[in-house]
Amino acid sequence: MKVRVNGGVRDYRTVWMKDSLVYMINQPELPHRFSIYESKGLRETADAIRNMVVRGAPAIGATAAFGITQAALEFDGRDFRDFLRHMEEAERVLKDTRPTAYDLFYAVDRMMDEIRIAGSVDDAQSILQKASQKYADESAGRCRLIGVNGEPLLKDSARVLTHCNAGALGCVDHGTALAPIRIARDNGKNPFVFVDETRPRCQGSRLTAWELAQEDINHSIIVDNAAGYLMRKGEIDLVIVGADRIARNGDVVNKIGTYEKAVLAKENSIPFYVAAPESTFDFHCRNGDGVEIEERAEEEVLYMWGLDSGNRLDRVGIAPKKSRARNPAFDITPAEYVSKIITEEGVYKPGEISRKYG
Amino acid sequence: MKVRVNGGVRDYRTVWMKDSLVYMINQPELPHRFSIYESKGLRETADAIRNMVVRGAPAIGATAAFGITQAALEFDGRDFRDFLRHMEEAERVLKDTRPTAYDLFYAVDRMMDEIRIAGSVDDAQSILQKASQKYADESAGRCRLIGVNGEPLLKDSARVLTHCNAGALGCVDHGTALAPIRIARDNGKNPFVFVDETRPRCQGSRLTAWELAQEDINHSIIVDNAAGYLMRKGEIDLVIVGADRIARNGDVVNKIGTYEKAVLAKENSIPFYVAAPESTFDFHCRNGDGVEIEERAEEEVLYMWGLDSGNRLDRVGIAPKKSRARNPAFDITPAEYVSKIITEEGVYKPGEISRKYG
Repeated sequence: MKVRVNGGVRDYRTVWMKDSLVYMINQPELPHRFSIYESKGLRETADAIRNMVVRGAPAIGATAAFGITQAALEFDGRDFRDFLRHMEEAERVLKDTRPTAYDLFYAVDRMMDEIRIAGSVDDAQSILQKASQKYADESAGRCRLIGVNGEPLLKDSARVLTHCNAGALGCVDHGTALAPIRIARDNGKNPFVFVDETRPRCQGSRLTAWELAQEDINHSIIVDNAAGYLMRKGEIDLVIVGADRIARNGDVVNKIGTYEKAVLAKENSIPFYVAAPESTFDFHCRNGDGVEIEERAEEEVLYMWGLDSGNRLDRVGIAPKKSRARNPAFDITPAEYVSKIITEEGVYKPGEISRKYG
Repeated sequence: MKVRVNGGVRDYRTVWMKDSLVYMINQPELPHRFSIYESKGLRETADAIRNMVVRGAPAIGATAAFGITQAALEFDGRDFRDFLRHMEEAERVLKDTRPTAYDLFYAVDRMMDEIRIAGSVDDAQSILQKASQKYADESAGRCRLIGVNGEPLLKDSARVLTHCNAGALGCVDHGTALAPIRIARDNGKNPFVFVDETRPRCQGSRLTAWELAQEDINHSIIVDNAAGYLMRKGEIDLVIVGADRIARNGDVVNKIGTYEKAVLAKENSIPFYVAAPESTFDFHCRNGDGVEIEERAEEEVLYMWGLDSGNRLDRVGIAPKKSRARNPAFDITPAEYVSKIITEEGVYKPGEISRKYG
């Protein structure tokens, strides 16, 4: 993705690895400061996923693949059975970071499969370095293809609603929901994006708006409450969101509030598209109700983080000290509300996904 | 309403008048500080409505009635025609403060009707002092009756979702949506309230949660995105909201996001109730689409106000400096999504309202 830094424009990925270090765009500091977070090893990488330095299902997947590679490089013995035990512990650490996004499990499983064919620790380390790099490259490539496949769904001057950040920052690059919008812009279609702010963590107003502003794509931030009003007024032509996990029947698990937008889109006869790569499809889950929904700390609801009037990152309390909060981080959108799923392979009805990928 | 101050519990109204002064609970400072805002005259009272020191349709109505009385008391001539011109200017000033809540226009018209029967300036001043006091008393009484009429809709341990603040703070006292909940609590039904935070101004997390905390009514704050998820999970038994204006056909204009909750409630077969007194019914409007929807400053979306880590009231920026926002403050919920309207007279289907009051 393009990022304006020091008066110029540079191309960045959300996460990358060099030698034994994993680098990530530090997302909790956006849009206020652009900085790179450096992780020296598995534990720091796992913490970065848990603390949402990096977030978004495809980005978490690539980060976990790099984390597995770091774990392998951290092993300094020669015994392959010890190495496998060490790696199984790394697998557990990574899989325990966050429960909902499927890409995490998909990527870790892919990497663990790679080492089972290795003949030695050295061999495994080398295989993983190549495999995790390939995973990240392919993940970026899949998102680019999602953009190509989804672009025809946007007419000239299409007004698109998106929820949360399913942009380059939620992936290795390009994004899922934002990828078709980028290509439509490149093709001169002049899309306009309504950005749901996406409480509680404001991935819309903080991250999606930041990405769009970096590339001068026209957009307006709205509170999550306003999308229905704009749909009913005829100001929204289509909705595109990403996904954290898609079940076999096409049910979509994604950021809390996605279900609300999907129901409202259906009620207003507006197409509702979900953009996701293969790594997000979980065919072990018959439907969305089988997916664990992460409940996060109530502080995310009771406080808001941002840049204070002294230009410092601070949080402000917005609720009574005595009040408690509930904070489910994801919801389930039944397949009946999803018009189409846009993948790297093409555009499908939710019910067709399992035949294509299953 | 009960307020814990200085170690004791005192009973407050949201707005009241003594001599020529109008007093209001200073709502932008809640829930962080409880303070009383004193308005010395018409202009300050109009500013207090515009700047949302006081908000909520019935509270705005009573405040405007007091503002008209202040304007009358400010007139120091003897000529009745001059007095009427002075009062028509006051009427204009008040009606220009905010466009959507009908109670404002209803209350000002009621007060202006009173003075047209007066024989002198002294007479008019005296009539208005009594009439505005009566207006506020009756407004509080109507809300109490809304509570009595709505309470049977809550079963034991009912789990209620409410949006925005339609509590005592939005009225003279008791509230509209919260009035039935207060009486259910008094009757030992132990209701539980899910409080939509209600971005952008967080009247839910700031004001509704504060009122409920003052009276130890069990509640959880949720982000506006989470209501649909909880409805689908079966954790919400009914929805009660207030209204800013109700049209002849039963369409409801209320805080932005109300329409979203109403559609979601219908989709999940959950009753959706609107609680409002007669002063909110606008039978000049055939339907909700004829009501002017206030668009407020984009700063409300781009920033969040609260108590910073140094215990100061501050705002934090939550969006890129280059990004713009749209900020419609209200939306229209078509009557088809409204199960019943709870008034001081009883509980009605939306279509029955105009026959009852028209």
